[in-house]
Amino acid sequence: MQSDRQETLSRRDLLSLVGAVAGGAAMYQAMTSLGFASESGYKGPVKLDGDAKGASVLVLGAGLAGMTAALELRKAGYKVQVLEFNRRPGGRNWTIRGGDSFTELGGQTQNCEFEQGLYLNPGPWRIPYHHRAVLDYCKRLNVALEPFVQLNHNALLHGTGAFGGQPQRIRDIKTDFQGHVSELLAKATQQGKLDEVVSVEDKEILLQAMKSWGALDKNYAYKASLISADFRGYAKDPGGGLGAAPVAGEPIAMSDILRSRMWRYLQNFALHEFQTTMFQPVGGMDMIGKAFARQVGDLIRYDAKVTRIQQDGGGVSVSFIDAKAPGTPQVAKADWCVCTIPLSILSQIQIDVGAPMKAAIDAVPYASAVKVGLQFKRRFWEEDEAIYGGITYTDLPIRQIAYPNSGFNRSGRGVLLGAYIFEGANAFEFTSMPPADRVKRAVAFGSRIHPQYGSEFENGVAVAWHRVPFTLGCAGNWTEKAREEHYDDLCQIDGRIVLAGEHASYIPAWQEGAILSSLDAITRLHDRVVRT
Amino acid sequence: MQSDRQETLSRRDLLSLVGAVAGGAAMYQAMTSLGFASESGYKGPVKLDGDAKGASVLVLGAGLAGMTAALELRKAGYKVQVLEFNRRPGGRNWTIRGGDSFTELGGQTQNCEFEQGLYLNPGPWRIPYHHRAVLDYCKRLNVALEPFVQLNHNALLHGTGAFGGQPQRIRDIKTDFQGHVSELLAKATQQGKLDEVVSVEDKEILLQAMKSWGALDKNYAYKASLISADFRGYAKDPGGGLGAAPVAGEPIAMSDILRSRMWRYLQNFALHEFQTTMFQPVGGMDMIGKAFARQVGDLIRYDAKVTRIQQDGGGVSVSFIDAKAPGTPQVAKADWCVCTIPLSILSQIQIDVGAPMKAAIDAVPYASAVKVGLQFKRRFWEEDEAIYGGITYTDLPIRQIAYPNSGFNRSGRGVLLGAYIFEGANAFEFTSMPPADRVKRAVAFGSRIHPQYGSEFENGVAVAWHRVPFTLGCAGNWTEKAREEHYDDLCQIDGRIVLAGEHASYIPAWQEGAILSSLDAITRLHDRVVRT
Repeated sequence: MQSDRQETLSRRDLLSLVGAVAGGAAMYQAMTSLGFASESGYKGPVKLDGDAKGASVLVLGAGLAGMTAALELRKAGYKVQVLEFNRRPGGRNWTIRGGDSFTELGGQTQNCEFEQGLYLNPGPWRIPYHHRAVLDYCKRLNVALEPFVQLNHNALLHGTGAFGGQPQRIRDIKTDFQGHVSELLAKATQQGKLDEVVSVEDKEILLQAMKSWGALDKNYAYKASLISADFRGYAKDPGGGLGAAPVAGEPIAMSDILRSRMWRYLQNFALHEFQTTMFQPVGGMDMIGKAFARQVGDLIRYDAKVTRIQQDGGGVSVSFIDAKAPGTPQVAKADWCVCTIPLSILSQIQIDVGAPMKAAIDAVPYASAVKVGLQFKRRFWEEDEAIYGGITYTDLPIRQIAYPNSGFNRSGRGVLLGAYIFEGANAFEFTSMPPADRVKRAVAFGSRIHPQYGSEFENGVAVAWHRVPFTLGCAGNWTEKAREEHYDDLCQIDGRIVLAGEHASYIPAWQEGAILSSLDAITRLHDRVVRT
Repeated sequence: MQSDRQETLSRRDLLSLVGAVAGGAAMYQAMTSLGFASESGYKGPVKLDGDAKGASVLVLGAGLAGMTAALELRKAGYKVQVLEFNRRPGGRNWTIRGGDSFTELGGQTQNCEFEQGLYLNPGPWRIPYHHRAVLDYCKRLNVALEPFVQLNHNALLHGTGAFGGQPQRIRDIKTDFQGHVSELLAKATQQGKLDEVVSVEDKEILLQAMKSWGALDKNYAYKASLISADFRGYAKDPGGGLGAAPVAGEPIAMSDILRSRMWRYLQNFALHEFQTTMFQPVGGMDMIGKAFARQVGDLIRYDAKVTRIQQDGGGVSVSFIDAKAPGTPQVAKADWCVCTIPLSILSQIQIDVGAPMKAAIDAVPYASAVKVGLQFKRRFWEEDEAIYGGITYTDLPIRQIAYPNSGFNRSGRGVLLGAYIFEGANAFEFTSMPPADRVKRAVAFGSRIHPQYGSEFENGVAVAWHRVPFTLGCAGNWTEKAREEHYDDLCQIDGRIVLAGEHASYIPAWQEGAILSSLDAITRLHDRVVRT
């Protein structure tokens, strides 16, 4: 939040003082208590001032980290060349549409048959409002955004062992849970059981608050009434004309909610990384990669599979072969190298770096993830069930069903995300199946939640990230211990080589991590060049 | 939710039985507990089967209720004519754009200077997913929809007497309140204070649930930590490269939240009528009215101010004058009349109906509401404060600041809703001011929340609904008592006249109420015609 100038200045002085005396953490806490917004690592377009001295940089990988580096380094005066394994820009910033084909590790090829305009984002699919770097590049590169619906109150929670397998509306579980919690706390407050921790003055306000927040009646009870129905929805909605009075439904009992464990899913709507307002690029996530490529596409050599990364005092030499027609290695040379190759791949490539960075490269396992896109003849989730966008969660192996966030309320075909399995045994199980079986299984499981699957399904595609040749996994899966031991070694400049990508960030698996990591890496590299 | 056929059938049998034995309310509750979706009053396109016998209908008002009646009755074989006071269709379904001018009661004219593409919806501005009738007409009439953001976690709550007048992020108040509630309940549970109401088995699950839902640490405490920061946001966001570790901020103390009364606003994000997924038509709410008019525009006589409504055994005669050039009244005749004129106006028109309907017409006061649209040179709320759509709430007279839900992340000008005052003394105070003063005051108050107002404001428009000539108020404001005494009398067919509009519904002030009321009215009218 911006404040008036004078107030801001005096606050800044105060903060500097706090920072100098008590250190960074205390300063950030002081900032928060003074009402400042949280601080993003992104401070606006990177400024690489100073002479690049005609130096050259070889960027490995044309994902968002690589293309960010290419764009900003060229602008700063460097000679830039990019080597990319795929025949397209973007890396994991990727959208599959009808007509696309994709061959995974093991040789299975899928040809996507989606209708024109429908798509699956197999990798990143949403952008939080606090991912300031991604949003700023979208703005600078003219990528149109639309809201991504994370929480749809009318989507479903499903547990195979809960409520007889009958899916529940998120709004019912969410509202009823909060209502029962409020009733319990209000009753305890009334009975004086919180007197030790709640002051007399606050006690009365707490009761009012529980009534307001928990949809309690005048006796602080959460039960069937038009009060609770105003929050959870009605058994019969209010209407127009005669016979139009609403009818309240019966809330779900607290014990049933507790034992269903469905409260676990409510986190997904409260976590900062999933809070409104989230975005998706209009038309598919790869609109971002394509927008970057409009700027730096001329620097990219596609189909280039890196086989060896060498450096000495004079520069960097990178050997590569044609990924589609392997032959004699070629060599690209530059003064410096920004390497954004995922660690899962890089750990298999011979690279001249010191032992600490090499150990770091080898230390990070990659997360497993599977996404399945399914095309249906009609958007039955909207037409039959009033589910517009958002995500249904289930304990079935498919874990999630996510409904499209564009083309709302239209007739015709639709593609939904029929499975999003992140980590765990199910992800590995799905990865081990042929793609057609993944699709078949997603349809079979999903039809237990949406019986319409049976008659409406048309075709699908399934991406298992451990079988994606250019990453062999979804994202760097740091443990706390590995991060402590290796993270700084991974990010240090090693001679003439610096690494970047989501794996070199504290925001793993998010595009913001890739871009911020790249900006940090090239800023340090540029400092070194300028100072040399 | 749809279930497989056999299961559905047997459930239907059961429900019929419950309905027959125990009545409607019990049936609806049984439906809910059996996992059915809530029942909307809208069952899909209205079916007016049977012979209209060449009968004619005069529809008064070309708002959504009137145009729904016109569209469906013509389709059913009636001769339809519509009289409309304004020179445009839609009524309160209205969008103001640059170039529009509007004269309010009292004679003040405003000429809107918004940049092309920017607009204010002075009336309805959002559509809940459960407003099935509005959504179905949008679908049938090809009105494109986009999400309306009701809850933006990064928008603000502001209290003049709270936190020194410093606005708070919604996410902080929302997360911290829930966290503290969870801590209080967890502690009471641990100390055995809920043993009377929570079983031993549930107690352990409740503790787990409070930890998960309330972002508590392993000691069930809600305090500064990366656990709470994962929900409320960080003092320093996680970043990329070196020095990128996140820093947690200090939660706001429970007592401070309680005394700030900011918990009152959290209702606005939980009520069923404001739950995700909400919509707005792309380009302005009047896209709906315009879409209706593409179907029935040929039936509408604009600038027709109704002065008298007469009926006898033979038909209905409605006198009207040219609203822009009053002169000798003309008379329109038909067999039947669907009158959608707001009660605030209708109560001032001589109408031949029985005493019960006349008493009902006179019994409903109209709600007061003021909306102010403000154009700024740039979308500073996005650029400076990362607020994309959604609503800031304040106890200042402007009550709300709502940010536009389209054109996200774009450069250039933007229009926000600088005040939305619904009922209360402030609404009347703003209504009493000249429009230019309303705008000036909205800017002055808003600048206490967004200091950028001062340098970025360009122009504005202000609509005070009690001064809008075609409604003299925002919407029917039923009390429970008035509804009990008069509602059914208002909705009954009186001879050859039936009323429709949001005022004849249980969803006042919403477009859904207008359409459902109209569908109910014409269904009953048609039944009468067919049976006659």
